Amino acid sequence: MTDYKRETETMARQAREASRGLATLPTNVKNRALSGMAGAIRNGGAKIEAANRKDVEAGRAAGLSEALIDRLVLDAARIEAMAAGVEIVAGLPDPVGETMRAWTRPNGLQIARVRVPIGVVGIIYESRPNVTADTAALCLKSGNATILRGGKEAFHSNMAIASLLAEAASAAGAPEHSIQLVPWTDREVVGHLLKLDRHIDLIIPRGGEGLVRMVTEASTIPVIQHYAGVCHVFVDKDADLEMAERICLNAKVQRPSVCNAMETMLVHADVAEKFLPGMIEKFRAAGVEIRGCEETRALAPGVATANDSDWTAEYLDLVLAVRVVPSLDAAIDHIARYGSGHTDAIVTDSYHAARRFTQAVDSSTVLVNASTRFSDGFEFGFGAEIGISTSKLHARGPMGLAELTTYKYVVLGEGQVRE
Amino acid sequence: MTDYKRETETMARQAREASRGLATLPTNVKNRALSGMAGAIRNGGAKIEAANRKDVEAGRAAGLSEALIDRLVLDAARIEAMAAGVEIVAGLPDPVGETMRAWTRPNGLQIARVRVPIGVVGIIYESRPNVTADTAALCLKSGNATILRGGKEAFHSNMAIASLLAEAASAAGAPEHSIQLVPWTDREVVGHLLKLDRHIDLIIPRGGEGLVRMVTEASTIPVIQHYAGVCHVFVDKDADLEMAERICLNAKVQRPSVCNAMETMLVHADVAEKFLPGMIEKFRAAGVEIRGCEETRALAPGVATANDSDWTAEYLDLVLAVRVVPSLDAAIDHIARYGSGHTDAIVTDSYHAARRFTQAVDSSTVLVNASTRFSDGFEFGFGAEIGISTSKLHARGPMGLAELTTYKYVVLGEGQVRE
Repeated sequence: MTDYKRETETMARQAREASRGLATLPTNVKNRALSGMAGAIRNGGAKIEAANRKDVEAGRAAGLSEALIDRLVLDAARIEAMAAGVEIVAGLPDPVGETMRAWTRPNGLQIARVRVPIGVVGIIYESRPNVTADTAALCLKSGNATILRGGKEAFHSNMAIASLLAEAASAAGAPEHSIQLVPWTDREVVGHLLKLDRHIDLIIPRGGEGLVRMVTEASTIPVIQHYAGVCHVFVDKDADLEMAERICLNAKVQRPSVCNAMETMLVHADVAEKFLPGMIEKFRAAGVEIRGCEETRALAPGVATANDSDWTAEYLDLVLAVRVVPSLDAAIDHIARYGSGHTDAIVTDSYHAARRFTQAVDSSTVLVNASTRFSDGFEFGFGAEIGISTSKLHARGPMGLAELTTYKYVVLGEGQVRE
Repeated sequence: MTDYKRETETMARQAREASRGLATLPTNVKNRALSGMAGAIRNGGAKIEAANRKDVEAGRAAGLSEALIDRLVLDAARIEAMAAGVEIVAGLPDPVGETMRAWTRPNGLQIARVRVPIGVVGIIYESRPNVTADTAALCLKSGNATILRGGKEAFHSNMAIASLLAEAASAAGAPEHSIQLVPWTDREVVGHLLKLDRHIDLIIPRGGEGLVRMVTEASTIPVIQHYAGVCHVFVDKDADLEMAERICLNAKVQRPSVCNAMETMLVHADVAEKFLPGMIEKFRAAGVEIRGCEETRALAPGVATANDSDWTAEYLDLVLAVRVVPSLDAAIDHIARYGSGHTDAIVTDSYHAARRFTQAVDSSTVLVNASTRFSDGFEFGFGAEIGISTSKLHARGPMGLAELTTYKYVVLGEGQVRE
């Protein structure tokens, strides 16, 4: 029997050691490593596909749903997409070394706040094996050592990908152990990992709410959560109703399965009669099931009754809760009470309403006259995304490379001492 | 028997509600509240002193050491200092509402990253009752609701101070429950509090390592740690040795009891013979006990032997570990192995050594040719300090008002939808 406690600690210690070298590795060496990693994925395609077949067969034998099997499968096109993704990261600007702010004190000390890697980042994820390559690339570019712990369904795929990546990174001059995958699927291994706060600086769980909750509760290492998106669009009384229709439709149906899709539409009572019947017709034409409050149901026959659990639901599907509210502040209160602090939008032409909504709604992203679907690292121009944080600490909202860094203060003097 | 679980949850929910109002409270109302709080401390001085006498008597009866009693005592001068501290916070710039960065996307969306309060901050602290006023003021200025949990030794003092503060803040227009003190000293209350991650956004423990460790292990809420400072000064071979002497003396003896005082001095072998004997003489004249490596002992008779535990010791006292190292990289390695990532300095006139040291040493503050004692919120010019974070996430090093905030993205459009 493997001594997981000792073995995971050894991995974490090796990662810490690697992180010291990574912190000062020049950008061009990191980019060379990333190009090498992309090449290794392409050249190792057959090896990855063979490992993936084992996982898929085991998954079928274990009775995984076809949806889960689909997440698991790696064909040539998906392998190429993984390699291309790593190449994109190579092309992004390196966040490390940026002087975020610098100033001089009256005593002549020069103080600079400089961006540095976090150190060792642990990624705990579920079934998609492409997460292995995506996150390893983002962590390496931002100068962090990575410890990956994927789901057991994708074990062979992850092992194949991670060993190709680790080898290519080392060959290009990255420190050994910059990228490590935990080679055991036993549940208790995660428990050990989450206590190694001496060696691991940050844990990012990527998966469903159950996983995120479990990790948060067990970890003594800081965790950045990616919880549910219960996103709202509020159609104000001063909205351009055609624009509102376009935005709400886009927010709900353009990709309903993602966390920045709209789940509840709030409509100001003054425009409900004019807006709702046509809007609901459009939703129905797009296959959306509507669950409404009493006022909504009075305006659109055949709408099901929304109950309290609908206001907090993250459907991730073609279902929408609709509520008529008497005022802007009632909309803000609804969002504060039922929302998840992810992404919320207002459609309005009122200067006051736009200002009040953006100030009073406490969500990671608040939009005026734009679809909630824009709450996204790529749409923000970050060039990459490690997720959308629903934590308020350290990183909030779409996380790019900069959010995988911290800072230190560099203070330059000429012999100053304190009086 | 009080139902602590329910009662602490009620407090936390009330704090969350208060935080919504605080988030949009204008700066001038917050400043008025702070002035009112300072006035309430002054006018309530007799009430505070009476409460404090109860604590001091109970402490004496329980056999607290004179050092602990001294931390506890509030006389007129200390009460005035508390009031003056709150007034200083009123005079500082408000961090909330600052646009940290803003840009426009090709599709015309304007994106701004705007500083907002964190929400609800829990402060868990030990015996000094002035922490009650200091942290409540800093949290209010940064728009956060506060839940305070002080040590049981200072219970009556804390209750008196907190009720004066809360009343004055409300009277000036801050939301009710902006400042709350947990009115029970039972240990299990802290355990409940640390699980209320739905309502509390951040926990800051202020106290010894035992408290910080306990809070970190029990909390499902993010914690910003203030662990030990095992601070180093490395005297390089290219150091101006007079400057080195001045800096090392200041770093050790100017205030040995604080976390940014030097605990280990590293000396390059090339200058050890020239530097160490005189330096050690100066230290001894200042009452410092020296524990050295073999090379140190060979150069300065009568120095005690340093063992491995001395390299990791935070003495907080007039004791210093001294080690001769063969090179710059050996100094960097020593700091990586034994240091605590708090504050480390190099004394050198070598451009290369200064650059290498500041890049390779992974501490919250790294100084060149200046005393470690400058790692401090006031010395950095922050105007206030809630502590010095040894965490890498969210806030690192000296924490001012800005570090008590997070951000949100405000996105302004004209009807944009995703393709």
